[in-house]
Amino acid sequence: MISEKMLALGTKRSVIREIFEYGNRRKAEIGAENVFDFSLGNPSVPAPPIVTETLNDLITNTPAAKLHAYTTAAGDLGVRTAIADYLNATYRADADPQKIYLTVGAAASLTVSLTAIICEGDEVIVLAPFFPEYNVFIRQAGGTPVVVSCPAPDFQPDPAAVAAAITPNTTAIIINSPNNPSGVVVSEDSVKALCAVLEAKQKEYGHPIYLIADEPYRELAYDGLDVPYLTKYYNNTLVCYSFSKSLSLPGERIGYILVSSKAEDADNLYFAVCGAGRSLGFVCAPALFQYLIPACLGQTADVAIYKQNRDTLYNNLTKMGYTLSKPQGAFYLFMKSPMADTDAFCEKAKKYELLIVPGADFGTPDYVRISYCVSPEMIERSLPAFESLAKELNLGE
Amino acid sequence: MISEKMLALGTKRSVIREIFEYGNRRKAEIGAENVFDFSLGNPSVPAPPIVTETLNDLITNTPAAKLHAYTTAAGDLGVRTAIADYLNATYRADADPQKIYLTVGAAASLTVSLTAIICEGDEVIVLAPFFPEYNVFIRQAGGTPVVVSCPAPDFQPDPAAVAAAITPNTTAIIINSPNNPSGVVVSEDSVKALCAVLEAKQKEYGHPIYLIADEPYRELAYDGLDVPYLTKYYNNTLVCYSFSKSLSLPGERIGYILVSSKAEDADNLYFAVCGAGRSLGFVCAPALFQYLIPACLGQTADVAIYKQNRDTLYNNLTKMGYTLSKPQGAFYLFMKSPMADTDAFCEKAKKYELLIVPGADFGTPDYVRISYCVSPEMIERSLPAFESLAKELNLGE
Repeated sequence: MISEKMLALGTKRSVIREIFEYGNRRKAEIGAENVFDFSLGNPSVPAPPIVTETLNDLITNTPAAKLHAYTTAAGDLGVRTAIADYLNATYRADADPQKIYLTVGAAASLTVSLTAIICEGDEVIVLAPFFPEYNVFIRQAGGTPVVVSCPAPDFQPDPAAVAAAITPNTTAIIINSPNNPSGVVVSEDSVKALCAVLEAKQKEYGHPIYLIADEPYRELAYDGLDVPYLTKYYNNTLVCYSFSKSLSLPGERIGYILVSSKAEDADNLYFAVCGAGRSLGFVCAPALFQYLIPACLGQTADVAIYKQNRDTLYNNLTKMGYTLSKPQGAFYLFMKSPMADTDAFCEKAKKYELLIVPGADFGTPDYVRISYCVSPEMIERSLPAFESLAKELNLGE
Repeated sequence: MISEKMLALGTKRSVIREIFEYGNRRKAEIGAENVFDFSLGNPSVPAPPIVTETLNDLITNTPAAKLHAYTTAAGDLGVRTAIADYLNATYRADADPQKIYLTVGAAASLTVSLTAIICEGDEVIVLAPFFPEYNVFIRQAGGTPVVVSCPAPDFQPDPAAVAAAITPNTTAIIINSPNNPSGVVVSEDSVKALCAVLEAKQKEYGHPIYLIADEPYRELAYDGLDVPYLTKYYNNTLVCYSFSKSLSLPGERIGYILVSSKAEDADNLYFAVCGAGRSLGFVCAPALFQYLIPACLGQTADVAIYKQNRDTLYNNLTKMGYTLSKPQGAFYLFMKSPMADTDAFCEKAKKYELLIVPGADFGTPDYVRISYCVSPEMIERSLPAFESLAKELNLGE
């Protein structure tokens, strides 16, 4: 009388979490400074000062009974209006406050969106490499994930492969850009080609195919690169956003869903989002963190540190002979495993106290993920270890 | 390609919300001071000062990168330990920090618990009167609600009726005490009789029947009344708690699930809870509000105001000839409709600007709910309106 599915999800730790726990044990054994933990995506850069200032201001100057009260289920309308204004000014997103639903973070944005649109028998396309929890969320909502691989080494989506994977049961596709785990930003050309495929397939099958834009890393793009805003390219879009990474607030759980005003039957799509949030037990996003948002729109934690980390790692590891996809965003570096057996490579890396995540759970078994949301000092200290590992494997010769 | 179920949940507002919205329109028309809105359960008493003090302290003195980071999915272990210590000292609850899972509030406590235990075909018993969202949450988790009425006027559970409703498919029963909407506290005698039934039926069917104790109103009990702590009476108990009402933090979404250490297969039950939280997209409870909890355990907002409201309303309305169940807890007064048609009675009350909620959605169509988490001044101002309504209906003659 316990759900076997939930038991399995609760007992089987993710590979990422396993490696992280190993790292903690190892740090206790040999000292934290001697372990190079690149396993987790937990931002290391603190929230920008505006976050602390605004929280202090809210707590000091807003009466507690008002500050901590329920908001409407979709979130405070003033906050939603500020978000819509920001999105329209920044991306010409055509955002309507009445189509924004505040959530307790990116995972909730996804589970609510998927629950709103998935009907029995529906399929959802995920592009590999992908965040492993997509599979969990799609199945929880009653759907079936269909994996389409993006070709290495640039990992841009392959429109023909997506077209081939779409069936009459396809209800949605998830696009995550900048991507976890590859760091790739989906280019405007790729977006256009992909949307053309989706438009054609919608017409062929006579029903919407939703594009779910999972964008917690939107602001973490480097070298001035533009991350296309997908509502401008495709009407049936739901943008799933979180402030976890941009504001370094991962524990506070605040994000939103934007239903495109141009989506087919947009009012009902939004109502279904509201119904899904209600049904899953979300009630409303944390009120204090809702009220924080208007002052922080467009602000980010110090992204320059992540860029510096990327450059240090990418440049040095490339010189050592590793094969890397140059990440354009997020804080992950994707490396081709120098050994045929990726798990064995990650085990060998452990000998040098390098903790990196094998790619199988991301749908890319030949690759490993290196999370560089760590201190620049740790990266500098880790370079000799990467060098020794490269030498053992005779890389760059 | 929109989920019809979710669309229905998103478009059909709850009756409570409809009345609340009517009240807002009416206040705009005739002035807020002339509308007596008893529709919502939104606490009117502010959070106790310790909440604001502790939030200020945390924000000022904890580095942002630590304060706002992800916690483990189950919640910070130090916070869970503080909760377990408090429960053990206060209720001899036999609570284990490793069996506590922090949630984003009461609704999440319920959806996570139900998702953890419901398998296909399972039934969950709810005792009328009940919080209407129970139906939504049980169906979302794949179960079927089975309603068992508690006999008026004291609304204690009827063990024989519960026994008759249990089938081989019964996986759980929800007990909500102090109760929304009736204000009734389930007595120790009722608890013992009910648990005896559950024990016998577990034995008969050879599988656990879980007792879900939904306790957001635990601290809101009056006249020194004891609210039995259910893990002491029944092993297969999950306590679903929220700080929304006790600390007047409904918008902040912080609560927990306690899996009884004595539950059958308790480790796996807890793992299934963790799996359900993961699957529904909760990730972790808001970190800042997790860290707030240890300082606030055992603290409450000023409950004396609610007691004063209860006494004013109960004493005056009884004198006027209304038939009331005297509430022992929460902040709801349950009134027998003086008219055969309860909806018509609530409409008639509106003529006097009295906004009260008909009982059909609570599973008790002959009753109405009066929420008294309002200002004492509004209650005083409303008494002549209740008086006039009583006169029109020839009550007390």
